[in-house]
Amino acid sequence: MNGAESLVTTLLAGGVDTCFANPGTSEMHFVAALDRIPGMRCVLGLFEGVVTGAADGYARMAGKPAATLLHCGPGLANALANLHNARRAATPIVNIVGDQATYHRPLDAPLTADTEGWARGVSGFVRTATSAATVGRDAAVAIQAARTAPGQIATLILPADTAWTEGGVVAEALPVPTRPRADPHAVATAAAVLRRREPTVLLLGTDALDAPALELAHRVATATGASLMALGSNARMARGRGRVAVNRIPYPVDQAVAAMAGFRHVILVGARSPVIFFAYPNKPGTPLAPGAHVHVLTRPEQDPRDALARLADELGAPAAAVPDPGPRPTPARGALSPEAVAQTLGALLPEGAVVADESVTYGRGFFPATFAAAPHDWLQVMGGAIGGGPPMATGAAVGAPGRRVINTQADGSAAYTLQALWTQARERLDVTTVIFANHKYQILLGELANVGANPGRTALDMLDLGNPQLDWVSLARGMGVEAARTDTCEGFADLLAASLRRPGPFLIELTV
Amino acid sequence: MNGAESLVTTLLAGGVDTCFANPGTSEMHFVAALDRIPGMRCVLGLFEGVVTGAADGYARMAGKPAATLLHCGPGLANALANLHNARRAATPIVNIVGDQATYHRPLDAPLTADTEGWARGVSGFVRTATSAATVGRDAAVAIQAARTAPGQIATLILPADTAWTEGGVVAEALPVPTRPRADPHAVATAAAVLRRREPTVLLLGTDALDAPALELAHRVATATGASLMALGSNARMARGRGRVAVNRIPYPVDQAVAAMAGFRHVILVGARSPVIFFAYPNKPGTPLAPGAHVHVLTRPEQDPRDALARLADELGAPAAAVPDPGPRPTPARGALSPEAVAQTLGALLPEGAVVADESVTYGRGFFPATFAAAPHDWLQVMGGAIGGGPPMATGAAVGAPGRRVINTQADGSAAYTLQALWTQARERLDVTTVIFANHKYQILLGELANVGANPGRTALDMLDLGNPQLDWVSLARGMGVEAARTDTCEGFADLLAASLRRPGPFLIELTV
Repeated sequence: MNGAESLVTTLLAGGVDTCFANPGTSEMHFVAALDRIPGMRCVLGLFEGVVTGAADGYARMAGKPAATLLHCGPGLANALANLHNARRAATPIVNIVGDQATYHRPLDAPLTADTEGWARGVSGFVRTATSAATVGRDAAVAIQAARTAPGQIATLILPADTAWTEGGVVAEALPVPTRPRADPHAVATAAAVLRRREPTVLLLGTDALDAPALELAHRVATATGASLMALGSNARMARGRGRVAVNRIPYPVDQAVAAMAGFRHVILVGARSPVIFFAYPNKPGTPLAPGAHVHVLTRPEQDPRDALARLADELGAPAAAVPDPGPRPTPARGALSPEAVAQTLGALLPEGAVVADESVTYGRGFFPATFAAAPHDWLQVMGGAIGGGPPMATGAAVGAPGRRVINTQADGSAAYTLQALWTQARERLDVTTVIFANHKYQILLGELANVGANPGRTALDMLDLGNPQLDWVSLARGMGVEAARTDTCEGFADLLAASLRRPGPFLIELTV
Repeated sequence: MNGAESLVTTLLAGGVDTCFANPGTSEMHFVAALDRIPGMRCVLGLFEGVVTGAADGYARMAGKPAATLLHCGPGLANALANLHNARRAATPIVNIVGDQATYHRPLDAPLTADTEGWARGVSGFVRTATSAATVGRDAAVAIQAARTAPGQIATLILPADTAWTEGGVVAEALPVPTRPRADPHAVATAAAVLRRREPTVLLLGTDALDAPALELAHRVATATGASLMALGSNARMARGRGRVAVNRIPYPVDQAVAAMAGFRHVILVGARSPVIFFAYPNKPGTPLAPGAHVHVLTRPEQDPRDALARLADELGAPAAAVPDPGPRPTPARGALSPEAVAQTLGALLPEGAVVADESVTYGRGFFPATFAAAPHDWLQVMGGAIGGGPPMATGAAVGAPGRRVINTQADGSAAYTLQALWTQARERLDVTTVIFANHKYQILLGELANVGANPGRTALDMLDLGNPQLDWVSLARGMGVEAARTDTCEGFADLLAASLRRPGPFLIELTV
């Protein structure tokens, strides 16, 4: 048994049975090992940003890490932006990077780079394997690190000779540390704050946004008059009919400040204290009201469901029915607008849908119209690195077979990682991509105004994607995905409904 | 004057008048400054790998650095693979990365990352600006660092508030250090080695491959019986009729070893000592013959033309006419093959063409058939990070207006950075992309055999790009570039000739 075989077997023993890959020469023995050891599903990406973004989406739906397979420092470099997003989402990933053989590295061949250095910024764990005999154990530690709450990226760098040399030893799965519970003092403090009945918001993040945790938070809020809110971006939210409806802190700084203005107390449940995405001259860096008190019920690595249940008990909060969100919307008619698209989504989202959302400006208002949609999950790009959406949708479809993934997608961001469409076609994944083709970096036009700049022709040119216009129908077909374009709500509803009836990927370009 | 305005003015004062950009919020003041200060050509890329690959190609042709404009750590991350390639090419680039405002960084907003850490692996110089008052001086130092021989990447990180704050000060251009000359001892040693008339090769790299240096090297070789050879990959080679024909060390390890087997002495002229791209079990790490002596005439930062002239004088080598490469080939007919494509290229390359070559396996034999082509320059991807070709072609066209760029391009590599086509369309660049669509990672099939692996179905699947086939004509049209497909030599010759007659980009998909 060589090192690569011990690695693959150890991954499978640790429950890692899906590998998103873009291999190169130094990974050939890992690839060859996949032939000899059954059980690993390998999903090829044409670009490493697809590989890691898919691993992010996969783990959010599957509840366990995928492995990646990347090629040397530059392959890792291409993967970093979506690893950054995955890090911000606290997604577990066993990130395997093949590299130069240990004895070849000193020769500084062209592809040699600072692989470890590049990995550190996104990884909670980095190790370079040193021998075939120990790479199995290295992998077991990496899986354990990845699965340790709240989830992190564990990078294992695999010099080619540690893969091809005989003497590999399979390692048993290491125990995943028990998830820490909230400190009793934190529960008591939160209860005391809530009993004061001052304006208070429970700010929910990570898995405080799953359905059971939301119900507990709702019970607490109903009993105490507190509000519930989520951060602006979230890894996964349970939404739709039968789920507790929660709004997010808006992205634009003034709206964010307005949303938080009334709250004297902010109780964090799995959420970080909120910050504004960017600084703007003479604007605050956080949306918190001046003098607001921030209390931590649970940090992201602590169990929010347990803490919320204890908090509800401490408060003697009675059971509270999930509010009815009103009737499910009907598909909109006429010209496309953000509101009309949201209404149509609310009408047509199928039960169990997974929305992979990188709609940026166009989708900022999609939430209210989808509260009454069929139950679904909503995933967002967490680190602000654009190009997360199509890969995340791809991985989510692998991680949640049988559920339809709807990728609500800005055009400028989609252009970063359009290669994800090819993987969707290859794997016949049930993904409907909806491109909001406004042919500009709309967000930057707003930001240009926000920073007080007064744009002229050169500046506007740099934010314009309309010369030439990207033709998303051609691009999708070039990647093997069927596609169509429309500029009406009726057209959108027809195309969306049609895509839901048939297996495999489809792309809808909305001319907006 | 704000910091951004002082930065733009300082760049122009330092001769940096072209900026490849993919800006975000934190760069909006830089973008706004471009409106108010005339003289900077801004070229937008849809993805940062396009931006930096284009900056690489630009500088190789223009002989001076471009600036880049990237957005925060993740934007830099997307740019790293082609910065790695540029570093290996010793290309000067003033790499500007906007980032969080100095006072906002401690809040760890979603896009915050280890920007400096990621920059280090590719940069000879890294500095984070600390105030608007000093950013002009920082830029002047960065330009000086980038232009210091042999050329390097100088990264200037620009926190948003150092751009938007008033009090910017323009800095004058700093002197570029005089290029060091070869040590007299090195010249004397090389002469002594050559006088022995033992089997010796002058191994040429960097600008020892421009036309005047090649002629001097040829004069030395003719006088001493030495051979001339180039490294496997080179930033820019002067080639074609009237230029001294030089072969490269082949990529496959066995062929590389065979090519160098006869040489007892290797004299490096601007070249690094050759190494094999990857280690393979039981194969050597360098192609050098056992016991071969390596002598350094010039390191890459030293002036090779001066050294070769002094060496020729020291040897009393008489002038030597450039050998006639024989008749220019005629276009091939019939089915496509690497030899036939090379022959057609040799026949049709226009005078002054720039070949941006990322043909990987398909183009390994293109050299011999193009020795007798019209005079042209040949650029290669230097760091082995795939996806360098289309951006390099894009930048070369910006840096060499009036010359036709032919991008000989492997399909798997092109899929990494196909967004470059959009920039070619937008800027109406004279680039003909020739895609060798074999629909597989052909190089890896060879490597799989090289490492001794015996591929089965899973392994072969991971190297197969044919399910579905990428349709490059659709992809190009989606990016705004006209395109056509052919599977015959006649079709290729017709399309290539047609593309040379008309301005702007064109893509030819060769079904091979």
